[in-house]
Amino acid sequence: MTDSSLPECGVARFLYLLDGPWATLIVRELLHGPHRFTALRNALPGISPHTLTSRLRQFETHGIVTRTSYGEVPPRVEYQLTPLGEGLSDVLTAMNTWALKVPDPPTA
Amino acid sequence: MTDSSLPECGVARFLYLLDGPWATLIVRELLHGPHRFTALRNALPGISPHTLTSRLRQFETHGIVTRTSYGEVPPRVEYQLTPLGEGLSDVLTAMNTWALKVPDPPTA
Repeated sequence: MTDSSLPECGVARFLYLLDGPWATLIVRELLHGPHRFTALRNALPGISPHTLTSRLRQFETHGIVTRTSYGEVPPRVEYQLTPLGEGLSDVLTAMNTWALKVPDPPTA
Repeated sequence: MTDSSLPECGVARFLYLLDGPWATLIVRELLHGPHRFTALRNALPGISPHTLTSRLRQFETHGIVTRTSYGEVPPRVEYQLTPLGEGLSDVLTAMNTWALKVPDPPTA
C-alpha cells in the first residue's frame, strides 16, 4: 500500500480508517449529533487530547467528519459526521447486535 | 467493570472482545473455515505468534472459537468459529460494505 491508497480488502480498509477502539467510540458519540471537542472529551473519559485530535483529523482527511468553525466569541468549533460517516451507523448497529449476544463469563 | 463482566454498551463490548485489528482479521480468515495455527499465521503476514495465541484464547474464553486437538502424529489442532463467532459475519460484511464506499485520497 502506498501512502495515498487504502487497503483493497474492505475489512482491512475499515480497520485502517477506524484505527483503535477510540475511533469507533468517537463515531458512536457523533452519531448522536454534532459535538464540540470538549464535549467529545467529556463523553469519552480516558481519551487523550492528542488521540482525539489525531482521530478527528484522520476522519476529516477521509471525508467522514466535517469540522466547522463559527466566528463567535469565544470561538466555537463543531465536528459532525458527513453522510459517509453516518453510514457507519450500520456497522455500529451490527457490532452492538452481535456483542449483546455474548454472555458474561460466569462469576467465580 | 469487574474482571468477570463485559461492557454493557454493545459497541464497547464488541471493541473489548475484538481488541485491535488482528482480532478482526483472524475472524475474517476463520469465516472461510477451520484453520490450523500455522495456516492462520501464514494468512496474516506480520502477526506475532504471541498475539495470535492471545486472541485465540480470548475467543475461546468467550465462546467465539473452539480449539480441537486431533490425536494424530504429528498432532493437529484446529480453530473454528462457533455459531456465535459465525455471527460476526454480519459485522464484517457491514465493515466491508461501508469501507468500500470511502474513496482513495487523490494521488499527489
